[in-house]
Amino acid sequence: MSRRANKMRTYQKLLRGAIRLIHRSGLHTLTTGKVASESGMAQPTFYVHFADMNTLLQKAASELSDAIFRRLQPIREQVMDGPSRESVRAACATAVNALVDDPRYAEIYLRYRRDPHTPLGERFLEFTDEVRGALYSDLCALGLNRDIPHLEIHVEMIFGMTLGLIEAIVDRRIGDLEIAVDLLADSIIAQLESHSTRARDVA
Amino acid sequence: MSRRANKMRTYQKLLRGAIRLIHRSGLHTLTTGKVASESGMAQPTFYVHFADMNTLLQKAASELSDAIFRRLQPIREQVMDGPSRESVRAACATAVNALVDDPRYAEIYLRYRRDPHTPLGERFLEFTDEVRGALYSDLCALGLNRDIPHLEIHVEMIFGMTLGLIEAIVDRRIGDLEIAVDLLADSIIAQLESHSTRARDVA
Repeated sequence: MSRRANKMRTYQKLLRGAIRLIHRSGLHTLTTGKVASESGMAQPTFYVHFADMNTLLQKAASELSDAIFRRLQPIREQVMDGPSRESVRAACATAVNALVDDPRYAEIYLRYRRDPHTPLGERFLEFTDEVRGALYSDLCALGLNRDIPHLEIHVEMIFGMTLGLIEAIVDRRIGDLEIAVDLLADSIIAQLESHSTRARDVA
Repeated sequence: MSRRANKMRTYQKLLRGAIRLIHRSGLHTLTTGKVASESGMAQPTFYVHFADMNTLLQKAASELSDAIFRRLQPIREQVMDGPSRESVRAACATAVNALVDDPRYAEIYLRYRRDPHTPLGERFLEFTDEVRGALYSDLCALGLNRDIPHLEIHVEMIFGMTLGLIEAIVDRRIGDLEIAVDLLADSIIAQLESHSTRARDVA
């Protein structure tokens, strides 16, 4: 393994070790020594990769956020090309899976996303705004803002509904992901259609 | 003022002082001295009312949770007596207002409700389960579990949608509460109706 690849591996190990510790015992008992030891390293190694704990937390939140946003990109384009029950369902599946594939990451996002007093929360707040903004601008690009009054309020509800499902999956109150995604897609469509002035004009 | 009333007043002042501090600077810089000083008292007074900070946080979370639950009770009964667009809308309005009437409390609930590593989060987790459970059992009592497959998943989405709106109001992305509550009620009805087997049979 090259020196650069080796360095990257250690870096990722430290990030993952920190994530495990945060998941297990929360944010406020975290120390650089514990992160190093959880990752199978000596404490000085921590400082080779991160200036301090806040830097690690910012990096962890950014990597997670960027990965999810990248994963959503292709399916957003697909919906824009041909909005249909099928493409909306695929978008819902991608959004849900992007989080619940790693329930530990999902839990940390859900737990700290509104806490501006931690570097995790700071970055997650930005990320949440980005995702919500992307959803709104996609729906506008589809022209829904012409048919649906107060589209921005619907975006808030759709976002909340999706996070509600993700929470229930992470907490294991919902076991069947396929059914959950079906119901999410159908509920979003029912919500938007029932508020569309165009649908009402046609009826 | 009687001695008892006076004691209650001091107790409430300390709780409110703690809430202001948590809202402003988060949970992890909180000290008994800061809470006492924020409430205009000397530090020893804190210990007259609370054994320690954890006790105060548990009390704060319990009082908030109990107050919201009590407030929901009459409107739950009203919906059970006569489920209609009007009573569902009134229930939505009560649920949203119970939180956003005091945006500081709402923000603290939203921020810590998934953090099991704080006494606030512990109590809020229980409260969230209680509210979700109450919603599910009310919908079952109305017989919706016979008409709507996977009703428990709809409950998760309705709960998430409602919290999503509350977040947006607390964050001031939504200004008009009346419109928001209208759309919430109509979206819940559209979601449930679109999944009802009975509606489909009739159609």
